[in-house]
This record gives sequence, C-alpha cells and structure tokens, in this order.
Amino acid sequence: MAELFNVLTVDEARAAIAAHLPDKWPHEKVPVLKSLGRRLAAEVRAVDDVPGFDRSTMDGFAVRARDTYGATEGMPAYVDITGEIIIGRRPEGEVKSGQAYRIPTGGMLPAGADAVVMVEYTEELDSRTIGIIKPVAPGENMVRRGDDIAAGEIALPVGHQIRAQDLGMLSSIGVTEVEVAVSLKVGIVSTGDELVNPGENPLSGQVRDINSHALYGAIAACGGAPRLYGIVSDNYEKLKDILRVALKDNDMVLFSGGSSVGTRDVASKVIDAAGKPGVLFHGIAISPGKPALGAILGGKPVFGLPGHPASAMVVFDLMVAPLVRMGGYPTGAKEIAMEFPLRAVITRNLRSAAGREDFVRVKLGYSDGRFFAEPVLGKSGLISTMVRADGLAHIPAGKEGVEAGEIVEVKLF
Amino acid sequence: MAELFNVLTVDEARAAIAAHLPDKWPHEKVPVLKSLGRRLAAEVRAVDDVPGFDRSTMDGFAVRARDTYGATEGMPAYVDITGEIIIGRRPEGEVKSGQAYRIPTGGMLPAGADAVVMVEYTEELDSRTIGIIKPVAPGENMVRRGDDIAAGEIALPVGHQIRAQDLGMLSSIGVTEVEVAVSLKVGIVSTGDELVNPGENPLSGQVRDINSHALYGAIAACGGAPRLYGIVSDNYEKLKDILRVALKDNDMVLFSGGSSVGTRDVASKVIDAAGKPGVLFHGIAISPGKPALGAILGGKPVFGLPGHPASAMVVFDLMVAPLVRMGGYPTGAKEIAMEFPLRAVITRNLRSAAGREDFVRVKLGYSDGRFFAEPVLGKSGLISTMVRADGLAHIPAGKEGVEAGEIVEVKLF
Repeated sequence: MAELFNVLTVDEARAAIAAHLPDKWPHEKVPVLKSLGRRLAAEVRAVDDVPGFDRSTMDGFAVRARDTYGATEGMPAYVDITGEIIIGRRPEGEVKSGQAYRIPTGGMLPAGADAVVMVEYTEELDSRTIGIIKPVAPGENMVRRGDDIAAGEIALPVGHQIRAQDLGMLSSIGVTEVEVAVSLKVGIVSTGDELVNPGENPLSGQVRDINSHALYGAIAACGGAPRLYGIVSDNYEKLKDILRVALKDNDMVLFSGGSSVGTRDVASKVIDAAGKPGVLFHGIAISPGKPALGAILGGKPVFGLPGHPASAMVVFDLMVAPLVRMGGYPTGAKEIAMEFPLRAVITRNLRSAAGREDFVRVKLGYSDGRFFAEPVLGKSGLISTMVRADGLAHIPAGKEGVEAGEIVEVKLF
Repeated sequence: MAELFNVLTVDEARAAIAAHLPDKWPHEKVPVLKSLGRRLAAEVRAVDDVPGFDRSTMDGFAVRARDTYGATEGMPAYVDITGEIIIGRRPEGEVKSGQAYRIPTGGMLPAGADAVVMVEYTEELDSRTIGIIKPVAPGENMVRRGDDIAAGEIALPVGHQIRAQDLGMLSSIGVTEVEVAVSLKVGIVSTGDELVNPGENPLSGQVRDINSHALYGAIAACGGAPRLYGIVSDNYEKLKDILRVALKDNDMVLFSGGSSVGTRDVASKVIDAAGKPGVLFHGIAISPGKPALGAILGGKPVFGLPGHPASAMVVFDLMVAPLVRMGGYPTGAKEIAMEFPLRAVITRNLRSAAGREDFVRVKLGYSDGRFFAEPVLGKSGLISTMVRADGLAHIPAGKEGVEAGEIVEVKLF
C-alpha cells in the first residue's frame, strides 16, 4: 500500500491499473451480424482469395492490353467481339489477339484477357467489331484475384473492434461467426446518505442519485454490461457487503460518491481489507476528478469515482472507458492523440495548476473554418455542465493555463 | 422526373430528399435506462429545482460570509460552532452572526448561512470555536437551489440524441421514462446475379455479398433497425416485388449493387413505376459513390447505393446515416463541420475533378503534435480499403486536388 494517498498522474494511474489486468478476458462465439462493436479474441484469416477471379470494375470489353497500344480517336484499334461474359458465370473460351469479350461490371475476365476497355472508349462498327479509341494498360479497369484479400492473409487482427466495414470483410471471406471478448460486466454502486433513487421524491436535504444512471449509460456506450447495485450508505459494513456481492457478479466495480474525506477513508479501508493488492492510488492529478480511487481486488479493477457528476464522468472517460472498450489504455502516440482528436480555439483564459491536467467542459462553435471551444461555466457538481457541453478540452500538466485564442485539444462526447 | 439522370451535389441531393421527409417519425415511451442513443420526440422540462436546496460542495463550515471578511492567518475570524449538518437531512435552527455549522460535502445549508468555509482554511480552537483564516464570498463552496436546473427549464430539447450524461440529468429531475423516436426500420436489398450469401461458397465468377452485412452494421451503428432481404437478381419483376415488400415493412429501403448501366436503369424504372415522386436524383457529384440513386416512395426514402462496397459505404455515410440517426441532414455551419472534425496533413498529392467532392479513405498517423492522413490505395470495389482506413478525408468540390502537406478535414470511422 505504498501508494496509498499518493496522487498519481493520469499516466501513472493507468500504468498502476494496467499492471494488474488479465492478459485475456473471457470470450465467446457470436454470429457476425451480432459482432458490431465487439473486440476480436482471435485474429481472422482469409481461407480463399477474394475475389476468387480477375474481375471487371467497368462495363466494357475484356481485351489483351497490347492490342490497344497506340489506339486513338483518329486511329482506333479494331478487335472482333468473340464472346460475352454473363455476370456470375465462368467464361467459356479465350480472348485471343485481336479479339474482345463484352463484359459487365463485376464480370469474370476470360482467359487471355488482361484488361478491360470502358465502353465509353469504344465505337461499335457492327455487331461483331469495335474500334478502341484509347489504350489500356494490363490490369486496367479490373481487380485481380486476391486483390481484396489473399488466402492466408490476416483479415482482422486480434483485439480489433468490429466496425460496419469489418462485417463486410468478414462476409466476403465467408466468416459467419467470430470469437469475441465477452462484454465486460460492470457493477455500479452509489454511496451517499443524501441520495434517493431517481424514481423517488427527495425530501429536504436529499437529492436524486445522478451518477448511477450516468455511469450506466457511459458503460453501455462503451459496449459494457452495466448492473446497478443501488445506493448504499457510507458505512463500513454496508460497503463491505455490497463490494463482495458486486465483485462476485462482475468483472469490474465502480463506486461513486463519498466525496467527503471521512467517506473516502471508509471506502479505501473497505477495499484494502477486501484483498490484495487493494488500493493502488487515492487521487489523480486532474481537475475535475482528483478524489478518484483505483484498486485491484482478485484481479478485478475497482474504481472509486468522485461524487460530483462531472468529475465522475471525467474519471470514467480517462480511466474506465478504455477498459470497458477492452482495447486497454491507449499506448502509441497516435492512439493517445486520438483521445482528443479535435483542435479548437479556446474562447477565454483559463488557469490551471502546474502539474495538474485539466479537462474543461466546452461547447463547440464553428466559424471561418475554425472550431471554437467555449468553456461551460459551473461547478463539477452540476450535471447540467456536462449536458450543455459537446466535449472536453485538455490542458496538459505542463501548462499553467491557456489564454483566449490558444488551440486546445478536444475529446467529443 | 425532371431530375432523372441529373447528377446533383451532396447538398442538392440532401435537399432533394429532405424536402419529402416526414416532420415527425413515430415515437414510443421507453425507460430512461433504455434511451441511450435515442432521439427525444418531445422536450423534457424540470418540474422542480435541482438541487432542491442550497448545498455545500466542500467539507467545512456553513457561515455568514460577512463574518469572514478580512480574515487572515495572522488575524483569524473566530466563530462559534452552534450546529452540525447531517447529510441528507434538513438542518435545524439558524446560523446567526458569529456562528457556524459543521457541514459535509453535499449537505444542505442551514438558514442564515450563505457560504461555506473549507475545513482547510479553519483552525479549531476547541470543540466549540474555530478561527477562519481566509474570507469567503457569499455563494462560495456551495451550489444554490436550482443551480443545476430550475423548475420549468428545458432539461433536454426535442430531437436531442441521448448521451450518458443526459441519463444523469433525467435522473436528477426524476424522469424515469422518455418519449423517443422509434428506431428507423431499414430494409436492405442486394442486387447482382454474381452474388451469393456470405455463408455459401462462390463458384467461379461468383462473389459473396459484402454490402448487405456492411450496411447492416452501418445501420445498427446509427441506431437503426436493419432488416435483410437477401440477394435479388437484376430483373424488373423481382426487383419490383422485393421493393413492395421491403417498403411495406420498413421506413426506408436501401438497394445496393447494380453498378452496370443496364441494371441501374432497371432499378430506376422499378422505383419510378412504384409511386410518386419516385427518383429524385440519379448520381451524386462525389467520388467514390457517383452512381447513387435517391428516391421517395410513399413518403419513404429509397436509396440505390453503388455495388462497390467502399462507394456504397461513402454514400451511406453522407446520405443515409444522418437520416437513420434521425437528426436529419446537418444544416448549421458547426454541424456540417462536425461531420469532418479532425484536421490532418495529407501525405501525398491527390487529384480530384473540379465540381466533384472526393472522399478519400485514409489511415491516420501522428507525430510532432500533428495528425497525418495517408491515403489507402485501392479501388472502391475492395472492402479491404475501408478496413485498412481510419476515416475519410474530404476534398471539397472547389478544389482540383490536394498536394502533400496540405491540411485535409477527416471524418473518423
């Protein structure tokens, strides 16, 4: 517990958690059409070439390219039409020198032909002869067998998150089921004696629980399987009981609330008593979100998120979302940069403490070809600040703020 | 049918479709936890103030701000501790001048108090008296009743697409069900005599259908409800039959394939014969994706997408995705700009025809603080070009290409 009460940087906090993550999550086989957004648990290779034959990409004539060399409008190259390709069928015969087969887009090239002349560059002399008015090079207006993917090539790598086009790729190689990581089960616990469930009417001094549902949505948006454990009071025994149940049922547990010092201490004591290595950090050098706790129990991540809704969501985005998406924390320069892909001009001066990363809720504007980021004012306890915002602007640890007119990097909600 | 065979710009094509869209899609009531990603069919207003009381955002002491004015470490302001706020309960009594109540984060301010002094800026003299070493202004370290949202205010506007934080907002105001637009049902038909289903083994001259599954994924990713109608041959009667069935069952129908001139004519004849206004455009001035057809039948959009998979997906992204997301085509400068939010340096010269918008598949890199967009080479018939790409770079109609080193705008997959 050397790290207890240590405040880590985002990078350090990520490394602390990553060191304890399992190499592989459980996986399952699903039909391709159900695999959107899931992570491949094993690479997928093509068994056959796609396409399985040389294929025209244009309506026109399959020819030997060399028959067309030097052809011009003034001096067309004349060839005999000796066949016609029927789409979806293997051609009969062969294109010999001085010959051409009529071919539709998608048709299979006949033996002998090595290029396609677009119909626009031909003139039909009679039903048996065309003049070609523009030369083609071998391979022009066609794709070759295996051009899309060749037998044995990796179609999609392990860990790849499946997008719409990947469903297309899988279909093209005849894959109808894929092995994907099982969606991460994440338990959500709200703590706070002032909280009531959203369906209840708060009495004076009470507020409805915001974080449970906001985190539920955030987990679902990352492809995880959220499960609500309701509101528990800031009490050692009750926290201990709910933690045991939630850990048993889930791959990860999120606590939120307990922003007061006493409550934070209770949560960290409960976690440390529950197993090893327990609490890895108790604070991240960010704003908002500093009072965030990270732990590993039985190999499963446990996060204590701040009670303030905007703070909880910022910590979720930085620390939890990459795990729920199962790609792990980004490592390469590109992947890290992609977390904040948009560049915008900040519209007002913002101060930040040196050594602290700030994540400023911003509303975006656009004019004269540039994005503008207008900070959304309001405390991190107000969920409305997250609702009014389009994203988060990042002020790195090395800066003591930004001035109006500077460029900031923005993550989009 | 004045527009038949007209090639429209993207903006014109969008306007042509938008003019015929229904004002309102069907809607339904769903529990808040099931509403992620859905579009609100009616605005949501707060009934009560949130929070319902002045609330501390820090652990400390509720005071009258004016009692702290001028306080310093050398000359603290001394006040008597006359009460303690229990979290979640209505306070008893009142803070009078010279008095303070102990208060935890989230606690309700007692009558009389108008600010909170953080515990860090106090020194406890004895159990009944503290010295305050830094003044607070009224409203400091607290949020006021209604600061998050006030009774009667719009919490979320009609048409808003619900994000995780919006679930939090809805919970805070006690809303447990919302009226959202019903997910758009989209029928998918692939045409082409060379196609076989992904589960089948293609014979010579045949290929597996890529577009059906790629579009299925693209629709699902936009929150739509895709439905597959399989492969039909390029035959007037068969196309007519499947169109009738698919239109009856769905809010929108996508055909893909039929890239050859003859097939395109059949599809447009079938659509024009099926109702009014029929085909609105038959070509968009884009690459890839030019041979795209847009129509309205019985108030429902029908799109003929190119057979080439990359072309079909580009047209889907531009023309279909905004409709399936139900936000409609973007109109404001910001919304249009947000379609291509990332700026990257293109790594090679690309030519484009004037008057044509190009959408170049690119793989992103990052170094020295800049994103680089490396064009993915390969024909639009190859789905692998979409799989290798991270996004689409946009070359506007006014440009005849870009040179290596120029900045391009990129949409991320």
